[in-house]
Amino acid sequence: MNIYDIAQRSGVSIATVSRVLNGGKNVSQKTREKVLSVMQEEAYTPNAFARGLGLNTMKMVGILCTDVSDTFYAKALSLVEGNLRRHGFDVLLCCTGSQLEDKKKYLELLLQKRVDAVVLIGSAFQENTDNSHIGAASKQVPVVIINGLVELPNVYCVLCDEKEALTRNVELLYRQGSRRILYLYDTLTYSGCQKLAGYREGWRSCGLPEEDLLAVQVNKNLEEVRSKVKSLLENGESFDAVLASEDLLAVGAQKALAGRGLTLPIIGFNNSVLAQCASPSLSSVDNMLDTLCPTAVNLLMDLLDGKPAPHKILLSAQLTERETFRMDSTPHV
Amino acid sequence: MNIYDIAQRSGVSIATVSRVLNGGKNVSQKTREKVLSVMQEEAYTPNAFARGLGLNTMKMVGILCTDVSDTFYAKALSLVEGNLRRHGFDVLLCCTGSQLEDKKKYLELLLQKRVDAVVLIGSAFQENTDNSHIGAASKQVPVVIINGLVELPNVYCVLCDEKEALTRNVELLYRQGSRRILYLYDTLTYSGCQKLAGYREGWRSCGLPEEDLLAVQVNKNLEEVRSKVKSLLENGESFDAVLASEDLLAVGAQKALAGRGLTLPIIGFNNSVLAQCASPSLSSVDNMLDTLCPTAVNLLMDLLDGKPAPHKILLSAQLTERETFRMDSTPHV
Repeated sequence: MNIYDIAQRSGVSIATVSRVLNGGKNVSQKTREKVLSVMQEEAYTPNAFARGLGLNTMKMVGILCTDVSDTFYAKALSLVEGNLRRHGFDVLLCCTGSQLEDKKKYLELLLQKRVDAVVLIGSAFQENTDNSHIGAASKQVPVVIINGLVELPNVYCVLCDEKEALTRNVELLYRQGSRRILYLYDTLTYSGCQKLAGYREGWRSCGLPEEDLLAVQVNKNLEEVRSKVKSLLENGESFDAVLASEDLLAVGAQKALAGRGLTLPIIGFNNSVLAQCASPSLSSVDNMLDTLCPTAVNLLMDLLDGKPAPHKILLSAQLTERETFRMDSTPHV
Repeated sequence: MNIYDIAQRSGVSIATVSRVLNGGKNVSQKTREKVLSVMQEEAYTPNAFARGLGLNTMKMVGILCTDVSDTFYAKALSLVEGNLRRHGFDVLLCCTGSQLEDKKKYLELLLQKRVDAVVLIGSAFQENTDNSHIGAASKQVPVVIINGLVELPNVYCVLCDEKEALTRNVELLYRQGSRRILYLYDTLTYSGCQKLAGYREGWRSCGLPEEDLLAVQVNKNLEEVRSKVKSLLENGESFDAVLASEDLLAVGAQKALAGRGLTLPIIGFNNSVLAQCASPSLSSVDNMLDTLCPTAVNLLMDLLDGKPAPHKILLSAQLTERETFRMDSTPHV
């Protein structure tokens, strides 16, 4: 018996059950009584209830992250942890790696620890085929996904419009004269698929021939990216600009091009410190983690207070211009 | 009444008390009885005891980190978390920032959560003046410091010999002809002081005049480092090589030099992905986190099992050679 079942048996939404549990205002007396009677019948004592009564709550949020040594995830973790802490919550951290079995195992483990909510960092937690484990977790506690999208009850997603960002980048490069843009990507997580779709969409909107699309998958390893791009160049593959799903891939391409004395417009993604450290410094898409993470934590606090919250918040990305691409530079036709 | 007091009253070491608590072998019957009787007198029921009895243990380790968005700390956290997880321990994470008051607050908070041990990541937790809070914590649970040194009972330190690494770098550069080596550093944590001392030591051992020492403190911000080094150059400060306490500082120096068409030998520190991404790629000191973190976790597991463990493990650093400095290159006199 969980909050989801209570909602179903009472014929109300999970948000309403949550409001009842937490003494929220916007609930009619009739609804409140109905929900409470179902709970009584079922001897329901969830975390959230205990929390509302000031009993037995851990005031602890579980965070799952595939790899905290990744600069993007590390920054997200840092921001989420800091914001949760400011609200008096502790953070139980699990780094899962990329295997689905491990993700499932650690998600269950967090729930056993009676965390008040779960935050998933990155769309790597969203499988293309089977998200039943996220669904199961969300029946026990609210699940918040940072930069991923799973449409299920009690799952809340705060994400950046990465597809639109890639489309816009293609259009910007096209306007400055690029006609064949190499796109480097590593994974096909939800985020990865969105970016790839954005690249294709931009291509279409510029009226470029589909057979010229040049999307190349590489491993997220600097040396591998460099040698991949080097071999593309050696095999006579022609392109006049580079987009990447990740700053590290853009740096790899930049190094391969420099090795042959070439300089092309390049735009990375994530606006990480790597983009700053590259020479010349990389223009990069800022996916707004600094806004996204506090927004996600505020949403979660609203949920735990029994207030209604949107299931999806979509922020637009921003291009940070550095040496490898500027919007106002002369077309390089 | 804590493990420290029990040890003192029993006239034995903390390790011995721990062995008694955990049913370890190398304890005489007489000692065991003495320790147990003191415990009985004092109605002592610590975590570790509960743990030994399989009762009430959280199997949870608290980790304090000043800033997990830092690439070095993020990597350490990732390694420590993964290794603890493999031993069946959860991780409660607190990011403290750099203020002593906050470090104290979060350390107390972790102890209230009844963690089995505390791991401090980085020497930023070691104050130059007052480590009483670490001492107080260590009376309740074992404290392990990654890359810091606090000499107190029940505090265990696994660290890299960063001083020796800096000394060796100065000597290597000297042998290739450098006579005035700029050293850039940011903080004066224990680690920061060790590195600075190593730089000075190398200088002395090469017989260089002390008045030529050129150690410059900068903020860990790429733009600030670049402009600082730029202004050194503009003010006619002469140097023929660069060492840094952190890869980011080395990259900043590299960019300032490149801005004036200069190429000098440069060696960074931490061997982070930043060193790989720089162009030319940075030679950098690898402080062996990949060995240091599992070693620290294994030491902690021994402690919790009541086995003896060394209070200090010192690993030597290794220089990773890349484009900005090679040991076998021709002297550039």
